[in-house]
Order: sequence, then structure tokens, then C-alpha cells
Amino acid sequence: LDNDHAAAVSRLVSTLHHADLADLIERLSRDQRARLLEMGRDSLNYDFLPELDETVRDEVVELMGFADLAAALADLDSDDAVYIVENLGQEERDQVLARLPGDQRMAIEHGLAFEEDTAGRLMQRELVAVPSYWTVGETIDYLRSNARLPDEFYQLFVVDPRHRPIGTVRLSRLLRCKRPTRLGDIMDPNVPVIASTTDQEDVAFLFRQRDLLSAPVIDPSGRLIGRITIDDIVDVIDEEAEDDMLRMAGLSETHVYETVYKTTKSRFLWLIVNLGTAVLASLVIGLFESTIQQVVALAVLMPIVASMGGNAGTQTMTVAVRALATRELAADNALRLIGKEALVGLLNGVMLAVISGAVAWAWFGRPEIGLVIGAAMVINLVGAGLAGILIPLGLEKLKVDPALASGVFLTTVTDVVGFFAFLGLAALVLL
Amino acid sequence: LDNDHAAAVSRLVSTLHHADLADLIERLSRDQRARLLEMGRDSLNYDFLPELDETVRDEVVELMGFADLAAALADLDSDDAVYIVENLGQEERDQVLARLPGDQRMAIEHGLAFEEDTAGRLMQRELVAVPSYWTVGETIDYLRSNARLPDEFYQLFVVDPRHRPIGTVRLSRLLRCKRPTRLGDIMDPNVPVIASTTDQEDVAFLFRQRDLLSAPVIDPSGRLIGRITIDDIVDVIDEEAEDDMLRMAGLSETHVYETVYKTTKSRFLWLIVNLGTAVLASLVIGLFESTIQQVVALAVLMPIVASMGGNAGTQTMTVAVRALATRELAADNALRLIGKEALVGLLNGVMLAVISGAVAWAWFGRPEIGLVIGAAMVINLVGAGLAGILIPLGLEKLKVDPALASGVFLTTVTDVVGFFAFLGLAALVLL
Repeated sequence: LDNDHAAAVSRLVSTLHHADLADLIERLSRDQRARLLEMGRDSLNYDFLPELDETVRDEVVELMGFADLAAALADLDSDDAVYIVENLGQEERDQVLARLPGDQRMAIEHGLAFEEDTAGRLMQRELVAVPSYWTVGETIDYLRSNARLPDEFYQLFVVDPRHRPIGTVRLSRLLRCKRPTRLGDIMDPNVPVIASTTDQEDVAFLFRQRDLLSAPVIDPSGRLIGRITIDDIVDVIDEEAEDDMLRMAGLSETHVYETVYKTTKSRFLWLIVNLGTAVLASLVIGLFESTIQQVVALAVLMPIVASMGGNAGTQTMTVAVRALATRELAADNALRLIGKEALVGLLNGVMLAVISGAVAWAWFGRPEIGLVIGAAMVINLVGAGLAGILIPLGLEKLKVDPALASGVFLTTVTDVVGFFAFLGLAALVLL
Repeated sequence: LDNDHAAAVSRLVSTLHHADLADLIERLSRDQRARLLEMGRDSLNYDFLPELDETVRDEVVELMGFADLAAALADLDSDDAVYIVENLGQEERDQVLARLPGDQRMAIEHGLAFEEDTAGRLMQRELVAVPSYWTVGETIDYLRSNARLPDEFYQLFVVDPRHRPIGTVRLSRLLRCKRPTRLGDIMDPNVPVIASTTDQEDVAFLFRQRDLLSAPVIDPSGRLIGRITIDDIVDVIDEEAEDDMLRMAGLSETHVYETVYKTTKSRFLWLIVNLGTAVLASLVIGLFESTIQQVVALAVLMPIVASMGGNAGTQTMTVAVRALATRELAADNALRLIGKEALVGLLNGVMLAVISGAVAWAWFGRPEIGLVIGAAMVINLVGAGLAGILIPLGLEKLKVDPALASGVFLTTVTDVVGFFAFLGLAALVLL
């Protein structure tokens, strides 16, 4: 593809949307990426940079060199530039910033001064702010004559003399009012104002709840310093949902383009934790070694109890983690949901107890074994329901991400409860 | 709260944003909901209806009665009205539609004619379409004088004489151009046009990829019939990510507000499937009953192998399901990723084999047992890595949602492989 057809490639690249170009670059090999960057040095639109997967971006940034990177950053919106720079190492960061013009360097450094995952990091500094005493006509004239405004904006922020946001005017509203109308009369004064220190999850919740397109960000003194737009929020929403899903499986990122070494390392940690909890469950089994020796059927049936508990618990936990993330589960309805999960566990436990009891009886021809597995199933499913909701709630209370550690704790609890109930009852009833 | 303070309640309700009002209603009991609806009959803004959880909405709709519901629907945007009506039973649907004015009934019926989860269902019919020969000035005058335009719009759709979309003009662009400028000269001709039959997942992908705010929807003849806006897409994105997460745990919806009966029923099905697969794993153990009888340590260590395989497989599967959803995993890089997952499984398998082998040796004082568990661990982790990526890929190929069934298949495979490898090796080496 990229051998000699430089002209064809550069034509293709210039017609592609930057997100599609990013996808293309991700699929290339390192050599191909280097050649593409070389060929496109003068013509490439670097808007694709923020769209790249992190691993691939690191490589592309390295291939570009500091001078090209600085030139590319200068063309990006301030939030995108901050996003790229924040992922560089300290030394690279200094090198690149030193090559940027003064005002852009300051803009990026200002963005970096906010903590990660806060509104300050997400926001763009480019916005349109106007005083409330302006008329629609004056505003349109201002927009037409001022070349330094952002490319795209969805609403005007109306500010008071101290530059504090007091309202917003949607462009569709502005366009539909007569020229002499004052902005103060048509603005929507219910501006949900976002502090620069607000966590991005809270910002996303607000956008979703209110169907916002953009919102003003203020500094501690209440002055308007930036805006957050819906396209960045879509990325945050995506990321948060993905994070919950990955964390429950003990992963930090999808790493489709990550190297084997890094992938192995990142997964190994979770597997080691899991090995520890599995040994804990085995210790419980070890307590009943002599029971198993006498009734080997127990060893055969044992995994059924544990597996059912693990699955029922995972169902409850997934619902709880998701409900916590969407704020449908909170302190005021937690007790009701705990009761409900225990009841659901009890009902399913009883039904599954009958079925698995019958299966075990038929298999080994001993009704007592069916009785034991049935009773253990009920205990384990109620325990799994309770653990599935109490563990995420407890972690949330401790300000730990409920998705992060729920998986480890949950399977430990259901395994230990399951093995203990099953083998303990067996020791009592069968011997 | 809602006893006598009717005035206070109606004041509170009228100041709340509709999404917050929906959250409030979700937390109320049935009686409280009935009283709130009674009190608010005349003053309530029914914008909260589309924001309600499905279970709660069914109840509210039932409490409202057909006449009130029809009145409420008449005030909603066409896409929201369709969304509510599509969830009603056939009889309720007919009753409500019969009470709507003719043009609104037609609009809703038109929306319902599109298949569920397609662009046609998502779209709003309210939009602003203008011919390309109009000037900026004419357009602004038109917007000012025409009262029947939608409340909010982000861009104008430029259409040809046959009402086919040929470009879009962002409002910020329109505002910044002089009155005599022709729309044809400032429009963006790269309109990503969406067919009404397009799946909503594909629509969401396009919006995310292109950072769109709204996009035109066309009928089979290419005519512009509606627009899809970003707020609906945010809901779709949310829903799709949530669906994947829930399906992997064998759930269909979060059902936080669902009744105990329905929750129990929906989870029972998955648990029964899981019981079947657990029995399959037990059958494998049953093959080695006599081996276990002779070396009870095997029963104690057995769950460790299975649990590690299940976890490693879940890690890989989560990554694969997510990568398929975000289209980072496709036919062109599948082979590379399969190889990578096998290699990661091998590396982690070897490391965990050493650790678990040492633990088993120390615990039971027999090096052969350590050797057996180590070898089984390597086999199981490679198998888990392969199963974790091949199962979702296979389901995707069969046009089944990879998230839906991956969980069941995966644990079956890892359990069967794990028990067979561990006990089979034990039978060979130890006896």
C-alpha cells in the first residue's frame, strides 16, 4: 500500500475524516506508520492525534519528534492539546512545551494545573462570552466581525461585569429573535455552572440528566474560564461504562494494541490476587478432607454449589455496580434493594435446590446427598445475593470504586460460603 | 411529604428539571405517585415521562389514564412520543392513539412503522430544511418569522429541490457570515446521511466517530424525513455499553425498580443454564472418582485450577467483547490478537504454575502434586485465553451478540479443560 504510491496515499489521507485516519494508523505496522508520517509531514491534519489509542499514540508521538509535535499541538483545540501533553513523560513534556509559542504554552500549562479527571482538564478555553445588555443585533455583528472566535459553538455564555456566567443563549434562540431584543431577556438563567474541580463523572451525569450541549466552567471566584462540550462528555460516558466493565474483570484498559509484555503484566496482578482467594477456598475444603475421603460424591458435586453462587452473586453485583454508576442506587433505597436481593436469592435458591437435589439423588442414588446440596444451594444463593449488593455498597462507602474490587471479594465470599455450607452439612448429615 | 402541602409540592415540582422530577417519582411509592399525578394534573410538565425507568413508567402511564396520556404525548417531541407509545400494549396503544389529534397520531404511527432500534425510531421529525440558493439574510428572516419551527436545533439541513439533503450549515457558521452570503457557499457538503433503516448501534458509532451533534435521516428515495440528535445518541451509547455488561452476567436489564417476581424470573433462566454447564464440569470430575478417592488432595486443589482458568478467560473475553463493540477488533487483526492472547495465557500460565506448584508442594509435601497442578495451570490458561477470544469472535460471526452467550460457554470450557487437565494428569502421574 504505502510503497511508492505517495500521491495516492496522500490523496486518501486528505479525504479521510480524522477519526477514520486514526483507525487506519492503528492498523498499520510501525514501519508503515513511520512512512506515512514522513510522507504527510507537510500535508497531514493532526486532528487524528487525540483519537488514537494510547499505545499507538505514544509511538506516533515518538516518531514525529518534538518539533513536529509542537507544531501539531499548536493547531489543536486547547482541551485536545492538554489531553495529548498530559500523557507524555516529564522530559518529553518539557521539550515539547519549550517549542510552543508563549501563549499556547501557557494555555496548556494552565490546563495541566487542574487535576486529572476534573472539569478543568476537560474544558476548552475557546468560548463566546457576551454581556447581558447587548442586543441580538449587536451580538450578531460582533460574531461576524471577530475573527478570533472558536470554530464551533452551540450557545453564548452571558456574563456579568465581573465575568461570572449568569445565563446562556442557544444559537437557535438567538437566530429567531429580532435584532433589538436584549440578550438579558432571552437568555436561559438556569445555567448549570460547573466548578473547575468537579469530577468528570459528575459532569457527565449533569450533561446526561439535563441533555446539555455545552456548559460553562468557573474558577473558585466564580469567573467563567472555559466550556465543556458534549463531544468530550460522550468520551467520558464511554470511558466510565467501559472502566466499570473492565474493572469487574480485573483489567485496567482494553489494550487491544498493547504489547504482549504489558498485557501479561497488567493481567498477572489480578490473577495473583485471585490465586490467593482460590487458596482460601481450598483451605475450607481442606477442613473436610476426611469427609470427602468417605464420600467422594461430594468432590464431584462441590463445584456446582460454588459455581451457582458465583453466578448469582455476579448477577446481583453487576446490577449494583451499574445502578451505583447511574445513581439509581443510593442511600435512600439501599435497604429496600438489599431486602429484595435476599428475597430473589431465596426464591431462586429454593427452586434450584429442588432441581439440583433431584439430580444429585438420581446420580448417586442417595437422597441425603440431594438434601445436602439443596440446603447448601439455598444458603449460598441468599449469601450471594447479599454479598452481591453489600460489597459494592460497602466499597462505595469507603470511597473505593465499587467495580474495582467487587469481583475479587465476591467470588471469595461465594466460594467460602458455598464450600463451607455444602461440606459442613455433609459432615453433619452423612457421617 | 405529599400529605397536605399541595402548594409546596406543586412549587417544588414546577422548579425541578424534568430529569430530576423523574428520579423523584422513581423513589416514591405507588400511592405517592398517584397523589402527585392527581395534584399535578393541570400544572405538570410531562417531559419527565421519557426519563422514567420502564417499570415505573408503566405504572405512571396506567395511573394517568388514556386521556391524560394523550394530552401529555401531544406536548412531547415526536421521537419521545414514539418512545413512550412503543412500550405500551397493543390495546393501550390503540386507545391512546385514538385520543390524539390526526396529525400527531399520524406522526407517531409513522415512527412506529420503523423497526425497533433503527434510525427511524430514534429520529425526530421536527427540523429546519432550507434550499441552497437562499442567502444568510433570507434564512435568518425565515427563522425569525416562522413560528412552527422546532424549539432547538443545532444546524440547518440544506436540501435540493427534491428534498434530498446536500449539506449542513452549523448555526455558529451562519451567525458569522454576512447576510448576502449564499448557503450553498458556506454549507459543509460532507453530510453523513443516515438511512431510516440503519441500526442504532451504527448510528451511535458514526456520531462518536465524527463528533456529530445532529444528522439527517433519509427514506429509501433519499428524501430528508427527520434528524437524529446527540442527546438521543448519548442514551443509545449508555444503553449499549450497559447491555454488554449485563449480558455477560446473564441479565437483560438492571431492573432496580423491578418487582421481586420479575427479577427472580429473569435471573432464573440464566442460573438454570449455568446449572447445566456446572453439571457438565461435574461429569468430568466424576470420571476421576477413584483417583480422588486415592489422593484427596486433588479435591482440595481442584477449584484453584478451575477458578484461575475462569478468571483469565473472563479477562480476555471482556476485552474481546468490548473491542468488538467499539470495532477495534475486526477480521483484519483477529488473527494477531488470537496469537497474542495465547501467548499472554502461556506466559501467565508458566508464572502461576511455578507459584501454585510450590504452594501445593509445600502444603501436601508431595512434589508430584505440585508438578501436576503446574502443568494443568499452563494448559488451562492457554485454553482460557483462546476460548476468551475465539468464543466472542465465533458468536459475532454467527450474528449472535457476543456478550450474550460468551459467559456460559466460557466457564464451561475453562472448567472442563481445567478439571480434565488436572485430574487426567494426576491419574497418569500419581497412580
